[in-house]
Amino acid sequence: MEKKQLLYEGRAKQVYATNDPELLIAAYKDSRGTAAVPGRGAVNNRVSVCLMQMLEREGVPTHFVEQLSDRETVIRRAHMVPLKIVVRNVAAGSLCPRIGLPEGTRLHAAILEYYYRSASLGDPMINRYHAFELELCTPEELAVIDRYAFRINDILKPFLRGLGVDLIDFKLEFGRLSDGTIVLADEITPDTCRLWDAETGEKLDRDRFRRDPGGAKDVSEAILHRMTGGNFM
Amino acid sequence: MEKKQLLYEGRAKQVYATNDPELLIAAYKDSRGTAAVPGRGAVNNRVSVCLMQMLEREGVPTHFVEQLSDRETVIRRAHMVPLKIVVRNVAAGSLCPRIGLPEGTRLHAAILEYYYRSASLGDPMINRYHAFELELCTPEELAVIDRYAFRINDILKPFLRGLGVDLIDFKLEFGRLSDGTIVLADEITPDTCRLWDAETGEKLDRDRFRRDPGGAKDVSEAILHRMTGGNFM
Repeated sequence: MEKKQLLYEGRAKQVYATNDPELLIAAYKDSRGTAAVPGRGAVNNRVSVCLMQMLEREGVPTHFVEQLSDRETVIRRAHMVPLKIVVRNVAAGSLCPRIGLPEGTRLHAAILEYYYRSASLGDPMINRYHAFELELCTPEELAVIDRYAFRINDILKPFLRGLGVDLIDFKLEFGRLSDGTIVLADEITPDTCRLWDAETGEKLDRDRFRRDPGGAKDVSEAILHRMTGGNFM
Repeated sequence: MEKKQLLYEGRAKQVYATNDPELLIAAYKDSRGTAAVPGRGAVNNRVSVCLMQMLEREGVPTHFVEQLSDRETVIRRAHMVPLKIVVRNVAAGSLCPRIGLPEGTRLHAAILEYYYRSASLGDPMINRYHAFELELCTPEELAVIDRYAFRINDILKPFLRGLGVDLIDFKLEFGRLSDGTIVLADEITPDTCRLWDAETGEKLDRDRFRRDPGGAKDVSEAILHRMTGGNFM
């Protein structure tokens, strides 16, 4: 596998071309925006790899191919569907002012939301009819995305619960492979999930993990610590 | 039919109890908020009655029973579903900044939107999962509401087109009868529709109708004039 030119650089990772037109290399950075934590890129890469492998085993297709190095993973090239899919189990963030629920309200059933990925419009919440009008995806693709999003929640929620972590809500993005197959793309890391301690309800942000007995530097590392029993480095 | 106590007063109409617990009387006002046009209540009543009768003939159940007088109509008592259903054929209003379409863009297919009727939250746009979480309606009820909303659009759009009027978008509200049947409730008048002249694209607001050859005082009267060939008074 030959690493070629940089195709894209986001807040949390870089994506490179390879000599295979169907494959790319994702390289996780220690920074996310302005904040940098040494070793964070390697931890986020490891967490995303673990979760993608688990989802693949459970029948959810993802863009994951193989881990290449500490920070680098080979992924399938996918044409991204410009939707942020948000799945919610507990009211938090923008949901609370929108529908008038207090933060922390446990939802009767998972809530799915679509946000149109558009920096100029500020990623507005939209519905399925808006998505079809903008030709972001077909009704058939959206039905598959809905099914995978709920399935991923049904897999991640009990898994994280077993680690003492409550999955409040999370963000997913999907893409199409060259043959049109819809796969989970982008990352799944603690940066794309809202996580609270299952016992105390404490928010698992960076401050929380400064005091973690395992000495984890941030929430990703602490989750990875819990996932691997500390044998990850 | 005995008219009893005032149950509700909105911007455009009053609703009274009757001696029959299943029936109410809607009385249309000449004012809507601060603006008052003499005769407007009678015109809006007549337009809503005509449209409700047309929808009933086409198989859409409504709360309409019979016209009682110029301004008064007997309606079935319905427990309102607290959703504003908006159906759009052409981009206008809040849709344009939300998804980045220029005003006047003809949509590939009708767009349906749900707004939660909540004055304290400012009638936010929501999706089906929010509606179920808030127990505004059941999935079965919402499927019926969706079907009726599209059906009403399929009836009103060509009807108004035949009057030289383009149905840009409109608002619907539904309610449950005592046996649970979902019916179209509230009014359908030019006050709840955005209408443009089909030939010129001119917005059919009040100023437009000051210059109408028929001498109509507002858009309701002009539409009624077109509907009845001028024989409505």
